[in-house]
Amino acid sequence: MPINVALLGGGIFAVDAHLPALAKSGTLASLEAVWSRSESSSTKAAEAWKSLTGQEVTKYSETGCDNLDKLLSREDIEAVIIALPILSQPDIIVRALKARKHVLSEKPVSQDVTSATKMLKDYQENYQAQGLVWRVAENWEVEPAHIFAAQALKAGHIGNLNTFSISSVLFVDNEDNKYFETEWRKRPQHQGGYLLDAGVHNAGVLRTVLPSPITHLSAHTALNNEHLPPYDWLSVITRSEPNNIHGQILIDYGARGREPMWELRLTGSDGEIYSEDINDDGVDSIKVQVRSGKFGRTNREIKIFPKTGVYEEQRRFFEAIAGKPDEYGSVQGALNDVALIQAALTSNGNEVALNILK
Amino acid sequence: MPINVALLGGGIFAVDAHLPALAKSGTLASLEAVWSRSESSSTKAAEAWKSLTGQEVTKYSETGCDNLDKLLSREDIEAVIIALPILSQPDIIVRALKARKHVLSEKPVSQDVTSATKMLKDYQENYQAQGLVWRVAENWEVEPAHIFAAQALKAGHIGNLNTFSISSVLFVDNEDNKYFETEWRKRPQHQGGYLLDAGVHNAGVLRTVLPSPITHLSAHTALNNEHLPPYDWLSVITRSEPNNIHGQILIDYGARGREPMWELRLTGSDGEIYSEDINDDGVDSIKVQVRSGKFGRTNREIKIFPKTGVYEEQRRFFEAIAGKPDEYGSVQGALNDVALIQAALTSNGNEVALNILK
Repeated sequence: MPINVALLGGGIFAVDAHLPALAKSGTLASLEAVWSRSESSSTKAAEAWKSLTGQEVTKYSETGCDNLDKLLSREDIEAVIIALPILSQPDIIVRALKARKHVLSEKPVSQDVTSATKMLKDYQENYQAQGLVWRVAENWEVEPAHIFAAQALKAGHIGNLNTFSISSVLFVDNEDNKYFETEWRKRPQHQGGYLLDAGVHNAGVLRTVLPSPITHLSAHTALNNEHLPPYDWLSVITRSEPNNIHGQILIDYGARGREPMWELRLTGSDGEIYSEDINDDGVDSIKVQVRSGKFGRTNREIKIFPKTGVYEEQRRFFEAIAGKPDEYGSVQGALNDVALIQAALTSNGNEVALNILK
Repeated sequence: MPINVALLGGGIFAVDAHLPALAKSGTLASLEAVWSRSESSSTKAAEAWKSLTGQEVTKYSETGCDNLDKLLSREDIEAVIIALPILSQPDIIVRALKARKHVLSEKPVSQDVTSATKMLKDYQENYQAQGLVWRVAENWEVEPAHIFAAQALKAGHIGNLNTFSISSVLFVDNEDNKYFETEWRKRPQHQGGYLLDAGVHNAGVLRTVLPSPITHLSAHTALNNEHLPPYDWLSVITRSEPNNIHGQILIDYGARGREPMWELRLTGSDGEIYSEDINDDGVDSIKVQVRSGKFGRTNREIKIFPKTGVYEEQRRFFEAIAGKPDEYGSVQGALNDVALIQAALTSNGNEVALNILK
């Protein structure tokens, strides 16, 4: 039996990413309703769904009587996918849980560690015991490319992990970038602006690939482009106790003069894993190279994975509802991602222990 | 008139780098003598010189009467090039200056900031006024590739510099690396081991290319290979007051599983400069790409420079003796390089202001 689901949010990512992934979900789920604050967005989402699948879907918005309360009161809807601005999500997550819906909410789990911790506690005390699933949609965490890299590392193909580096460079353009045009991103009220919003993706990847979590970091922030307040650049060095893995993180969303790039390097005692974003015949993909032995020359495996993270996170959400939970998508994990970014934003060059944020 | 010079040191770098550069120096200088502690090294150096140039050179060593004192007492010798282990240099630099010889001594200027500061003060008070030149042979500082990058930046080809990153990855092998086989490198008595010895090269490059010096840094060290004590890995984040340039430095001499690489990235408000080590038809070279405009796409200039830093530093030394000093090779600059590495080695993840080390 497919799980009846509603999509809350009619913004860019809801329409461009969640709807196509839902359209691929086959017998796992059935989209029954879409909701957005404005009727126009709700209509746009319903139309997008129709053009993807040929199917009609019920529209809800806050302009008429068919509002969110109405949607949440429908007993036939078992789950909601929430893709809303960062500061709008917490309230709606709680409303959905109260209405006894399973929830998949977009990353970051919340705007800061304090509020995320409170939400997690509330979920654990009041809803988890009732069997309600709440997962955070951190799609990078479940990209098959990163899971493959994690498995290659775990299998010992590059020896023990000594160090890593992850670099995400992307110029958020104020001329022709659809994400920039959303008001909540343009004038962010949440800490860090894009560095939180998109920065947690990199924290999510590290959670998937690293054999143990980062425990300490030091960082600097900078603002290199006035249209990207409060910061568009973040540089972090990390270490992990007790296993002594060290790393570097660079998040640069304001490198106007540079080509966009994303790369991850896992340097082991006997090889390295190198992952990078590529465009493979028009398909956004991740190329992973596992190079074993001295200088990585003994054995080399190259694999290209199309990016399917949004489909993956939805699939795992629906399977968890059906009783097959896995290690991904956890609220605690998403909270740790926010903690990493928050620590980096407040470090000012000095070491911060990640556990003190909780 | 060529300047009469003696080479002090018969080790690998003296023979493999300084002698060939001297052979190229034409009418600027004339090698008159070589000295090494052991007679065998002294002989090896003299033989190397003969095979390079066909010329005989007087040999000195500490095993006979023709020792360093004898060499330094020769009035016809005006200058010495010192290429000795880090802890052996200070004493011999002072002896050479006392004997009224101009000095080009190998990097690092000394093992730490305290001793380097003392040596600089001694030079300024007692020898500089006599017209004696003392420069530090930091060959990366004067590589034509880096001077070209510095000029392109200064000319505004990538707008204002916002951030930089420099990465030096090289596995110091314990199996077939000639440098590793020298006892003073194998069991280093100086701080940081290879991280000081070779790490200062990267500090030297940054001195050449950055429009203003680094003022603050935070760093981590690690030892990933037991044969490379005390550390083989160094990760640094930096900032500069008051102009707000930020950077990342990675020095990894123990990445057994990775191909060696060296790269420098200067990210500007309107372009980037990307330099990397390459092998160009068997010649160790540096490729520099200057990419201007949005995403670096407006204009692109690519230049390949064979590495000629040792020749360059010698040439500038001889020209300075002849009365044409330049902005490179300064003892103060070399001291700043040691300060940067020393600060990084002692940071433990917390911010260190570079001026407090002086």
